[in-house]
Amino acid sequence: MGMIGGGRNAFIGGVHRIAANMDGLIELVCGALSQDPENAKASGRDLFLNEERIYTSYTDMIEKERGLPEDVRMDFVSIVTPNHAHFAPAMAALENGFHVVIDKPIAFTLDEAKQLQQKVSETGLLLCLTHTYSGYPMVKQAREMFKNDVFGKIRKVYVEYPQGWLSKLSEKEGNAQASWRTDPSRSGKSGCMGDIGTHAAHLAEFISGLKITKLCADLSIMVEGRALDDDGNVLLRFDNGATGILVASQVAAGEENALTIRVYGEKGGIEWAQQEPNTLLVKWLDAPTQVYRAGANYQHLYPVASQNCRTPGGHPEGYLEAFANIYRNFALALTSRNDGTEAGNNAFEFPGAAEGVRGMAFIDTVVASSAAEQKWTDFVV
Amino acid sequence: MGMIGGGRNAFIGGVHRIAANMDGLIELVCGALSQDPENAKASGRDLFLNEERIYTSYTDMIEKERGLPEDVRMDFVSIVTPNHAHFAPAMAALENGFHVVIDKPIAFTLDEAKQLQQKVSETGLLLCLTHTYSGYPMVKQAREMFKNDVFGKIRKVYVEYPQGWLSKLSEKEGNAQASWRTDPSRSGKSGCMGDIGTHAAHLAEFISGLKITKLCADLSIMVEGRALDDDGNVLLRFDNGATGILVASQVAAGEENALTIRVYGEKGGIEWAQQEPNTLLVKWLDAPTQVYRAGANYQHLYPVASQNCRTPGGHPEGYLEAFANIYRNFALALTSRNDGTEAGNNAFEFPGAAEGVRGMAFIDTVVASSAAEQKWTDFVV
Amino acid sequence: MGMIGGGRNAFIGGVHRIAANMDGLIELVCGALSQDPENAKASGRDLFLNEERIYTSYTDMIEKERGLPEDVRMDFVSIVTPNHAHFAPAMAALENGFHVVIDKPIAFTLDEAKQLQQKVSETGLLLCLTHTYSGYPMVKQAREMFKNDVFGKIRKVYVEYPQGWLSKLSEKEGNAQASWRTDPSRSGKSGCMGDIGTHAAHLAEFISGLKITKLCADLSIMVEGRALDDDGNVLLRFDNGATGILVASQVAAGEENALTIRVYGEKGGIEWAQQEPNTLLVKWLDAPTQVYRAGANYQHLYPVASQNCRTPGGHPEGYLEAFANIYRNFALALTSRNDGTEAGNNAFEFPGAAEGVRGMAFIDTVVASSAAEQKWTDFVV
Amino acid sequence: MGMIGGGRNAFIGGVHRIAANMDGLIELVCGALSQDPENAKASGRDLFLNEERIYTSYTDMIEKERGLPEDVRMDFVSIVTPNHAHFAPAMAALENGFHVVIDKPIAFTLDEAKQLQQKVSETGLLLCLTHTYSGYPMVKQAREMFKNDVFGKIRKVYVEYPQGWLSKLSEKEGNAQASWRTDPSRSGKSGCMGDIGTHAAHLAEFISGLKITKLCADLSIMVEGRALDDDGNVLLRFDNGATGILVASQVAAGEENALTIRVYGEKGGIEWAQQEPNTLLVKWLDAPTQVYRAGANYQHLYPVASQNCRTPGGHPEGYLEAFANIYRNFALALTSRNDGTEAGNNAFEFPGAAEGVRGMAFIDTVVASSAAEQKWTDFVV
Repeated sequence: MGMIGGGRNAFIGGVHRIAANMDGLIELVCGALSQDPENAKASGRDLFLNEERIYTSYTDMIEKERGLPEDVRMDFVSIVTPNHAHFAPAMAALENGFHVVIDKPIAFTLDEAKQLQQKVSETGLLLCLTHTYSGYPMVKQAREMFKNDVFGKIRKVYVEYPQGWLSKLSEKEGNAQASWRTDPSRSGKSGCMGDIGTHAAHLAEFISGLKITKLCADLSIMVEGRALDDDGNVLLRFDNGATGILVASQVAAGEENALTIRVYGEKGGIEWAQQEPNTLLVKWLDAPTQVYRAGANYQHLYPVASQNCRTPGGHPEGYLEAFANIYRNFALALTSRNDGTEAGNNAFEFPGAAEGVRGMAFIDTVVASSAAEQKWTDFVV
Repeated sequence: MGMIGGGRNAFIGGVHRIAANMDGLIELVCGALSQDPENAKASGRDLFLNEERIYTSYTDMIEKERGLPEDVRMDFVSIVTPNHAHFAPAMAALENGFHVVIDKPIAFTLDEAKQLQQKVSETGLLLCLTHTYSGYPMVKQAREMFKNDVFGKIRKVYVEYPQGWLSKLSEKEGNAQASWRTDPSRSGKSGCMGDIGTHAAHLAEFISGLKITKLCADLSIMVEGRALDDDGNVLLRFDNGATGILVASQVAAGEENALTIRVYGEKGGIEWAQQEPNTLLVKWLDAPTQVYRAGANYQHLYPVASQNCRTPGGHPEGYLEAFANIYRNFALALTSRNDGTEAGNNAFEFPGAAEGVRGMAFIDTVVASSAAEQKWTDFVV
Repeated sequence: MGMIGGGRNAFIGGVHRIAANMDGLIELVCGALSQDPENAKASGRDLFLNEERIYTSYTDMIEKERGLPEDVRMDFVSIVTPNHAHFAPAMAALENGFHVVIDKPIAFTLDEAKQLQQKVSETGLLLCLTHTYSGYPMVKQAREMFKNDVFGKIRKVYVEYPQGWLSKLSEKEGNAQASWRTDPSRSGKSGCMGDIGTHAAHLAEFISGLKITKLCADLSIMVEGRALDDDGNVLLRFDNGATGILVASQVAAGEENALTIRVYGEKGGIEWAQQEPNTLLVKWLDAPTQVYRAGANYQHLYPVASQNCRTPGGHPEGYLEAFANIYRNFALALTSRNDGTEAGNNAFEFPGAAEGVRGMAFIDTVVASSAAEQKWTDFVV
Repeated sequence: MGMIGGGRNAFIGGVHRIAANMDGLIELVCGALSQDPENAKASGRDLFLNEERIYTSYTDMIEKERGLPEDVRMDFVSIVTPNHAHFAPAMAALENGFHVVIDKPIAFTLDEAKQLQQKVSETGLLLCLTHTYSGYPMVKQAREMFKNDVFGKIRKVYVEYPQGWLSKLSEKEGNAQASWRTDPSRSGKSGCMGDIGTHAAHLAEFISGLKITKLCADLSIMVEGRALDDDGNVLLRFDNGATGILVASQVAAGEENALTIRVYGEKGGIEWAQQEPNTLLVKWLDAPTQVYRAGANYQHLYPVASQNCRTPGGHPEGYLEAFANIYRNFALALTSRNDGTEAGNNAFEFPGAAEGVRGMAFIDTVVASSAAEQKWTDFVV
């Protein structure tokens, strides 16, 4: 793996490295860790990289690595830069035969996303989009339950993602994360919805197996002086007729990262909360709620849930393990592809370009809807 | 107290009686407990009523009681009939000098509600509307915190009220509660929103101290064959610029009565869940969440919260006590009025005609909005 | 009902009155509410008692009431005095033909308890001991599950009752409750174990259906200057070979009334916490934990659980309703006895003299064990 | 790092590898992964080890590695074998100049533990004992709070560790973990207390800063046919006069790994549960309970808590991160030692030989106490 972005003071790059390290399947062999050459070098040394594989630009990295022997050069790049700097390195990597992992959202615009999807399709290379929350075993369990029609027709989806960390104008107080995420030139046309609303939308579609067909959005800038939405409420309609609510906020003071989803069918439904991710509540119309637990050894868990755990029940796994599941599944899929064996089951599942395109379309649609007079705006890709 | 409705097989009448009994301040002295004379009589005997004060119509009861000596006759009526039968007895009681307690919603239409409000104003009699959830001590605590501006300007209100009990077409299977609540001729123009959405809307305004100014509703009938909405999602805007979400459902299979509210201000906010009502979570932007508990003896509780508890912390009080608080506060206010003393503080607080009018206006507005093409519909009374 | 004790400034008397009022089955008709005649009279007027039935001593009350016509006089006394003043009025009531309700513990000494048990047996009158926690519907559900051998042989019982309210020397700071409860001349030979340890021991035996056969106690006085134990830990052995732990503390600073019990059998077990009493966790060796809920309408609840609820699931009932269940069951049993019909099922269940005797024996045994050198002390009645 | 044990089918070896991998500070360079040469080789290849550094015995590994250049050879061994095979490789490693990490308990007997402690002292090498639970950030926070006397004198410690996985005679049904853990020749003189009771005892002392001085144990074999205790209850006394309870069970059917601790001082206390490890409840006598959260950015967290987190609040970290904290702190301490710099603060903290000796003494003492007639047995090292 070669990393693009993620130098000192970055946040998500470190997370990607831990996730890639965890299972001993992936080795960080090179990096273009910062646009700032000094930072790039210092960061590379921090990570014990070989001095000649600490690059100061991604173009340099891709070119040099391409020239190395196959068993030495990186297999894929991991792109952990701000949103405006996803497309160019991803396209360059794909054009030069490298697989790609990208932190979400996939790109800066829907058009870029579609170009990447097209390129992936042309090259047959793998593109993995780190919608972390889909890596949790209990999320996979929930998805399987709906796939297997355990609850009857889905009627209602609630998904909410409240955070409080942008309750003040932190982008003006030296907070680097706040700075780029609230800046239209680096983050894109939406702040809160692009950053976390896309996670919520992806999770809703991932678990329910439904597609959003139209929506009605009310985005707000709650903190004076901010340039992008920091709060939003969205009514949803799905392709089977189900209704939904998606709420995302970065000004819900006192909340951490409280992504929660509930999906109700005719006979029951599920509730999952990211902050206690090893529990899946399974609710029934005519019977007591059940508490499904990750890592448990009972027959109620689908194999895909168990395969994405590392420890027995009661040994809590968390965000980093969910992230590592994305990487592990990507690595296993890559190995399987390189070995010429087919990845046989959805234990190797990870989000890709199609999900990336839907994420960008979601951003476009909520922004358009929020500005519109009419109630419903169609969600089209 | 004389009760109208609430005979055998009714639900809410029994709750009203328990609530009225609990503190030993109110005595049930007569009743017109059913339109069916047999049921009326049997029900009256069940309740140990004096045979001659078991009436078979409310008109009869009001007339006869009016003729009794002041220290014998009922002081007020409690109306616990289905929605379409609230207005007439309430108006008759007021016109004959009796105070009134009415189960919510106050009436069948907004116009009826306004007439009652007008009559209350003319007569100076008391009208109490049993928006139960406002009777919980931790709800009162939350309201006081916002009144005292503990959290800064409110930015966001989430209120949700999921139930699952109408997940099937129970109104066709002999469920009496389901039958009238889904029948437009007895329930009114909305089902779910009239039944529980009004509670949610009242709670949001009660705690936040804000008023809804416009909304965008998406009501649905999820169960085929049903005549009224059984599910709805609503975007809200409040008079201070805050946004909100109100969700109510009676087809959230597996949910009981999961009314929950969260209100966020600039510095923090609150979360309260009706099913664990003795806890109020108080969240802070820069400090650990605090768990306020009903009945606790620390200085963090406002007097109004403590005055609405009967036991020390750790002795859970619930729905019936909240209901009893409405009755107790009404009884104390009545005594205070009769004694010529002014009810000195909001320990005697209970919802009244104004809240009833807003509730009916809420129903009208969500129904209109749901049918509209445009996003926003003004909430006007 | 005639009440002995429970005047102004008392705690538990008010709880008894609410419990007795709640269901409209019991009327407070007289009282000897305080030893202080002024307090007795003022308290009686607070409660709207008929002036001539406000007594200033229980002997006077019993004598006068006995002389009243059968349909006027009280049916039973409710004794809510401190522990040292339970025996004499209870014995006097029984000797004069009145049934008795007593707040626990039944008496001041084991010998008194046995005398009361003997007198009950001789007279055939009813004696009800208000071990409140056995009145909760989910406690009754748990008991039924063990009665029906749902979990196989019981292996382990944990019961704990931590409170924090005696963390300071409050008895020297004017706290009336603390004053008598820590005073050997009014409370008995144990403080914490007598006050709340007895509740825990009763609950353990009530739910499990087992009997404690020996124990090993470590009682402490944690607050300097206190005269009775305020903390204790006890190892238990039960008659089927199960082991157990009983912990009670009144110096667990920050705890309210956190009575919790867990009982494990071969195939699973239960967990119940008094502060969230409407939930019973049902755990399984090979399946997800289930969340049983009071008032739910599924078939998993035994009738006795449903019969002790007043509202549907999601309308939380609490401590006062549990207390009221004791009174209601007592009242129904009394009616059934008076009507000559047999109380047909355990919906009418309430603790009585036998439980009172075991409670006093528990106190004797823990105190003896705590002073002993040897590990085990037999629990004998 | 060279690993001893942890081949295919082992449990804890994989956990150690993930923990060591996670932060990119430690590289697995060699292993003697199984006594079975075939398994050793296959396991080494699974882990991408260099073929010539896949050893088939630890003695071979230590000898060969010792001969490699300093910058190539392993720095330390990680011993993840069953308990009876801890001492010999640990002693061999120390004698040959290698630092040591050992899964707990440190050895098979107290005497072995003392020999290791002595050898560590002589050689000045580092020995790290993986008492995982002390690696959690909220455990470290709790410890710091008591160190800083936030709650006044400690009065009571509850620690409990219920599991249910040995509810059946699994050791006879081919469960490899059950097999060695219930076998006196591999596990030691205690089963449940050695396996998990030692964790509980360590956690109690680690957080409270107190030492157990005497105890009274009641160990049981609940599953017929088992050779070692699978359940135990212990009364504790601490060196400051505090009392305590320690409960450990492997037959609490339905429990996973529910280690929980509560410590109460004069002014308040803490509660921490391993299954939701990112939350620390901080309770107060006179104020609302606070919910401290790992990764939060408020000033209420001590630096040692923050330094042992990898992500911001709301991104749950778990068991593997706690384990990784032990390894990271060990690695940082090793680097610091090698660089000649002093480890400046307790961010580098990890349990060592002294804790190992106390753990073995705990096992000896509970076993002796359980067999004794007298109540108290002194805890001496």
